[in-house]
Amino acid sequence: MKTDYFSSRTTVRKFSDKEISEDVLNNIIKKALKAPTTGGMQLYSIIVTQHPDKKKTLAEAHFNQPAATGCNLMLTICADFNRFSQWCSASHASPCYDNFLSFTSAILDATILAQQIVTIAEMEGIGTCYLGTVTYNAAKISQILNLPDLVVPVACLAMGYPDGKAEETERLPLEAVVYHEEYPRFTDEKILELYKAKDNFPPNKKFILENKKQTLAQVFTDIRYPKDMNEAVSDQLLMLLKTKGFLK
Amino acid sequence: MKTDYFSSRTTVRKFSDKEISEDVLNNIIKKALKAPTTGGMQLYSIIVTQHPDKKKTLAEAHFNQPAATGCNLMLTICADFNRFSQWCSASHASPCYDNFLSFTSAILDATILAQQIVTIAEMEGIGTCYLGTVTYNAAKISQILNLPDLVVPVACLAMGYPDGKAEETERLPLEAVVYHEEYPRFTDEKILELYKAKDNFPPNKKFILENKKQTLAQVFTDIRYPKDMNEAVSDQLLMLLKTKGFLK
Repeated sequence: MKTDYFSSRTTVRKFSDKEISEDVLNNIIKKALKAPTTGGMQLYSIIVTQHPDKKKTLAEAHFNQPAATGCNLMLTICADFNRFSQWCSASHASPCYDNFLSFTSAILDATILAQQIVTIAEMEGIGTCYLGTVTYNAAKISQILNLPDLVVPVACLAMGYPDGKAEETERLPLEAVVYHEEYPRFTDEKILELYKAKDNFPPNKKFILENKKQTLAQVFTDIRYPKDMNEAVSDQLLMLLKTKGFLK
Repeated sequence: MKTDYFSSRTTVRKFSDKEISEDVLNNIIKKALKAPTTGGMQLYSIIVTQHPDKKKTLAEAHFNQPAATGCNLMLTICADFNRFSQWCSASHASPCYDNFLSFTSAILDATILAQQIVTIAEMEGIGTCYLGTVTYNAAKISQILNLPDLVVPVACLAMGYPDGKAEETERLPLEAVVYHEEYPRFTDEKILELYKAKDNFPPNKKFILENKKQTLAQVFTDIRYPKDMNEAVSDQLLMLLKTKGFLK
């Protein structure tokens, strides 16, 4: 079946030295631009970081994680109402997109585009990795990329040709995430049953041991996404939205 | 080339009576669950609306637009930190995801999943249409679907087998949206040049005439996405995030 690829896809974090040519990249993005977009407005922009100096600076903002330092290029995909607003002003219209709804429309557009790029790139043999750190350091990244008002980075893709085969990851069973007609209420016993395979997935068991925790959930709440960090980053993100003009 | 589909894909708003079977739907979603997700957390849920009565109620919340009333089923894809938080609590961990960063991670996860479903469904011959109205009536939709705390609808897909061929839409040229190393500053003349094909696209010219406007941009600012509506919906959205516990 032509959609078999989707069942076996994996995120790639280790890349070979082979360069992604401008032709190959443009071809991927050109196809991806046909992805759905709010009202046909294309509320996104893509900054390509491929120059070694700039890549080094940007990788630092991603805490020098190996996928960032070792990739061939990074795409920072931004929620962007700046270009559209300038077009409105230049066309004798009064843009009014300095609000949270506009940010929501733009983050949807940008994320849909990012995922379309991921799929096309992977189908063409290129590996990709979302760098979640883009939200942790959004203000610094905005500076590095010289982003104007109404432009906020929401997704960053590290890309390159894969070096070796990446490991498959575990996923929750269908009944854990797909509900019919209404949202159900689960008992704690049922929740634990639905997460059982995740709890018992060997790499996850290794995480628990390495971090000296009792449960996998504690690895998430105490180590990977702890309260203090979540709250500090939340404040910074809301501040960035304000600074960039999305919360007027 | 195996990615040729992407260049010619179109959104489908008119559907035949043919039913999407549960098997076909589950198969699509199962494949889509392999999409990337923040820290492997799968911060989303999918509510399937296929029962005629529920579909009628949900379509009303989407202003009875033809894609909603005429589709075979709707998928409401939600940013969801509820299930993950319950798993944490049931696993002797203290969840701390009642903040804006958590909402951001979850809207990214949900949107990536939504777009993965769109791509797989379309490649399997099923038509899809994002209903942007999901953000306009998010509170009402949350009620209809009985959504708990930390769950907010962010994307709604109307789906069905296509009836006829949908028209292709226009897109900006690559240079309008892809920038190298830094975000550029365009002159108004350059912006108008980049949007020229969009301004001259025949269906867009029809919009201008029908709405008695001088420019396409005015159709957006005065009719489709006007200031009063944007600001009212922004307030409602932020209120919903607060009510659902994402802005503590």
